[in-house]
Amino acid sequence: MAEAGKKAIQSARHLPIDSIYIGAMNVEEFVGEANFAALLADYMGLSGVPSSRVETACSTGAAVFESAFYAVASGYMKNVLVIAGEKMSHLPKMTTARILTEVIDREERRYGATMSALAGMIAHRYQKEFGLSDKHLKHVLAQIVEKNSANGTLNPYARAKRTITREVYEKGRLIATPLRLFDCSPNADGAAAVVLTCEKTPIRVSGMGHATDTMALRHRASLTAFSSTKASALKAYAMAQLNPRDIQFAEVHDAFSIFEIIGTEDLGFFEPGQGWRAVEGGLTALDGSLPINPSGGLLARGHPAGASGLAQIVEIVLTMLGEVDQKRQIRRADLGLAQSAGALANNNVVTILERSDRHRVVTTGWQPEYKPVIQVGTSDGVPESVGDSGTLETYTTLYATPEGFSPPHTLALIGLEGGDMVLARYPKYLEKDRFKIGQRVVLKKRGDSVLFETGGFLQSMRDKVKGLFGRKTPRGKRNQNTGP
Amino acid sequence: MAEAGKKAIQSARHLPIDSIYIGAMNVEEFVGEANFAALLADYMGLSGVPSSRVETACSTGAAVFESAFYAVASGYMKNVLVIAGEKMSHLPKMTTARILTEVIDREERRYGATMSALAGMIAHRYQKEFGLSDKHLKHVLAQIVEKNSANGTLNPYARAKRTITREVYEKGRLIATPLRLFDCSPNADGAAAVVLTCEKTPIRVSGMGHATDTMALRHRASLTAFSSTKASALKAYAMAQLNPRDIQFAEVHDAFSIFEIIGTEDLGFFEPGQGWRAVEGGLTALDGSLPINPSGGLLARGHPAGASGLAQIVEIVLTMLGEVDQKRQIRRADLGLAQSAGALANNNVVTILERSDRHRVVTTGWQPEYKPVIQVGTSDGVPESVGDSGTLETYTTLYATPEGFSPPHTLALIGLEGGDMVLARYPKYLEKDRFKIGQRVVLKKRGDSVLFETGGFLQSMRDKVKGLFGRKTPRGKRNQNTGP
Repeated sequence: MAEAGKKAIQSARHLPIDSIYIGAMNVEEFVGEANFAALLADYMGLSGVPSSRVETACSTGAAVFESAFYAVASGYMKNVLVIAGEKMSHLPKMTTARILTEVIDREERRYGATMSALAGMIAHRYQKEFGLSDKHLKHVLAQIVEKNSANGTLNPYARAKRTITREVYEKGRLIATPLRLFDCSPNADGAAAVVLTCEKTPIRVSGMGHATDTMALRHRASLTAFSSTKASALKAYAMAQLNPRDIQFAEVHDAFSIFEIIGTEDLGFFEPGQGWRAVEGGLTALDGSLPINPSGGLLARGHPAGASGLAQIVEIVLTMLGEVDQKRQIRRADLGLAQSAGALANNNVVTILERSDRHRVVTTGWQPEYKPVIQVGTSDGVPESVGDSGTLETYTTLYATPEGFSPPHTLALIGLEGGDMVLARYPKYLEKDRFKIGQRVVLKKRGDSVLFETGGFLQSMRDKVKGLFGRKTPRGKRNQNTGP
Repeated sequence: MAEAGKKAIQSARHLPIDSIYIGAMNVEEFVGEANFAALLADYMGLSGVPSSRVETACSTGAAVFESAFYAVASGYMKNVLVIAGEKMSHLPKMTTARILTEVIDREERRYGATMSALAGMIAHRYQKEFGLSDKHLKHVLAQIVEKNSANGTLNPYARAKRTITREVYEKGRLIATPLRLFDCSPNADGAAAVVLTCEKTPIRVSGMGHATDTMALRHRASLTAFSSTKASALKAYAMAQLNPRDIQFAEVHDAFSIFEIIGTEDLGFFEPGQGWRAVEGGLTALDGSLPINPSGGLLARGHPAGASGLAQIVEIVLTMLGEVDQKRQIRRADLGLAQSAGALANNNVVTILERSDRHRVVTTGWQPEYKPVIQVGTSDGVPESVGDSGTLETYTTLYATPEGFSPPHTLALIGLEGGDMVLARYPKYLEKDRFKIGQRVVLKKRGDSVLFETGGFLQSMRDKVKGLFGRKTPRGKRNQNTGP
């Protein structure tokens, strides 16, 4: 972080720094420091200068930029150094995984959900809602991974140094169906820094928006769009007096490949359900009409939680200044957008950066479509009455499980009468079952958890077994051996 | 925090909230959440509203107010809800202590230092520099504790419900010499909230300053003043176009009783070394000419780390609005100051609040005296060459030790040739020794630690023993039994 900070000060020609804004998601648990803003200032030899830390989970890098922007915009600060970073590679993988999972809803965690699990559920739902076959979805996701990893090979700050071809992609193990290893951005250490100044510079901040969403996925009306991105984008476009069609290139929060598609739809670049077509058509490629993640995105750069949001902004600035590898230099690069997501897209930030010499034409009018949330406010524990059955809204089977759970671990969101959704897990002894979004399922309470069973299968199994062995079914036995 | 937030919204007559700024020092380790800004927004039914967390260790509550202030001052936000809080009482005391100690310099922690230890060293140094006897210092500190606890009995938000009389104070066990139990603000759960708005209101923010200092105490030139407070105050007075004499009452960060004295000097209320006289003379009492901590301060309110800085601001607002208990209502209350310290005073914030109807007279010109820091930047491990001897700059004996250490545990700052200081610990088998600030001490390296011994005592012991038993001294034996 100090290294990135010093580079930023250097590139800002040693403007005197009035204040430091530091972004780090979880220095407490990752590195055991709880006074990090002062520590970093001291370490950099800037002791004395005010220093504050800002945090919004995985969008920290963008949110710290936002707060620093207000400090300069207020007129009270002239030059503010913004540094964002995260360090996690020194810890055991399971520890890192546990710490990272603390960003999701406590109830979701209790069921053994992870970020990948929630992303998997979203991918399944997107596939169903927009009519993609399993094969087709895999094809599209592989194309995103290939595009971003190829872009990343041209980025010296990227972690990935090779292109993930379709063949390599398909060899990646399943993490949370339908997502595979290379659909998930890798954990990483990293840092990014900029100096925000009231002085005239080649690049200006022209739009900025920030919005939250419910912590829990089950409280949202849409599982294929993020209202936090839409609301942030709406504010950013309004402030910049622009609309999505003006944007020339964008860094979109591809923590998971599917999120890049959803991001480009939420930002108004493509209609809902059309984002995957844009990928297939090559529109979002480096040489496409709207390059997305020319830096390689989080997929290729890696995802050092607190840093990612600011790294996107740095990438846009370097591209606008023509300071990136010529092979990934965007031709028209005087208006770029960065979209960053906090946790499961419930604390998102959109930033629009513009070359100061760009000819400005006011083009407002974009208005995204919202679906209202189902429920606001956290609610722990099993709802009083979940009823006996519900509709399978989406699901995932986890093959990389958190501590205390073993794969395969299937989770689903079940729609209840009245519109609420409940998180439920699938009994392990029925692991060979197939799931269909939209099907009716049977719900059972076990302790403080809700289980779902696909009644039809069970019934047919029971009938079959009954036919073979009379009343003595093998279910009880299998349950004893492999049941949770 | 939600409760405090809702009260603030209510008192702001339900202005529409454009953004939420949340202060919490260490939600990750205290409550196991790493996406707290979104969580609290959701929990309060404000899902959708942008929400950022700001953190600067123990001054978090003041720093989050500062960032929120810039957001409003920038013109991009009209009404910002600021909530600060901390929750720790559910954890075992040793866990809380360990987490809280993460705010101090890593090297200091390695020696078994705690916040109380550093405060103890500062108290001893203050006593020496300004010529107070042990008894006299105890007398003054007891008076602060009595004053603040008495004020606290009139504050429904205070934790302390009784006045700590001199008798009770003296019964308090030693924590870190010369500080006793009631010199240390108790850990607590708590929250505070305000709404900052661009609308005209009875109270305005007229001054704001923020500054850091070195993480390590040994890197500072002064051990009896905090340059972070002076620098913050200088900025705040300049912004408000006021000087210390204009301030009518103040909330000063009395995490330890001695800090209230130092704070009132750093803020320019009293000359260096005169703060204790002001206490003795009753100037800082509720009915004095400059009431300090009329709310009871951190000593009486308790210190819910992230909340304290904002709680001070809330207390000043309530006092200015005449909404506190009549017995603690300041007569002239249209200009108040809050001073908050992050960790060992290395991330401090000063806020000046003013009644909007106050008649303003510009009175600038205050300039505090600074001593430069000895060393900037963190430095771990034993310096290459500490030499064989040094000067005892200050010390403390800890009776409440962190995990891995046992009382009595004596730590000292030793001045080296050339001006640097080094932290050193005292071998336990010499526990009966007396220390004098300014005396020469012998330094020894043991592993990666520096030990100090008061040569004169050792020599006299050796001589005495030698006289009795010839060359066979009992020192080796005692070392085996009780050495660390």
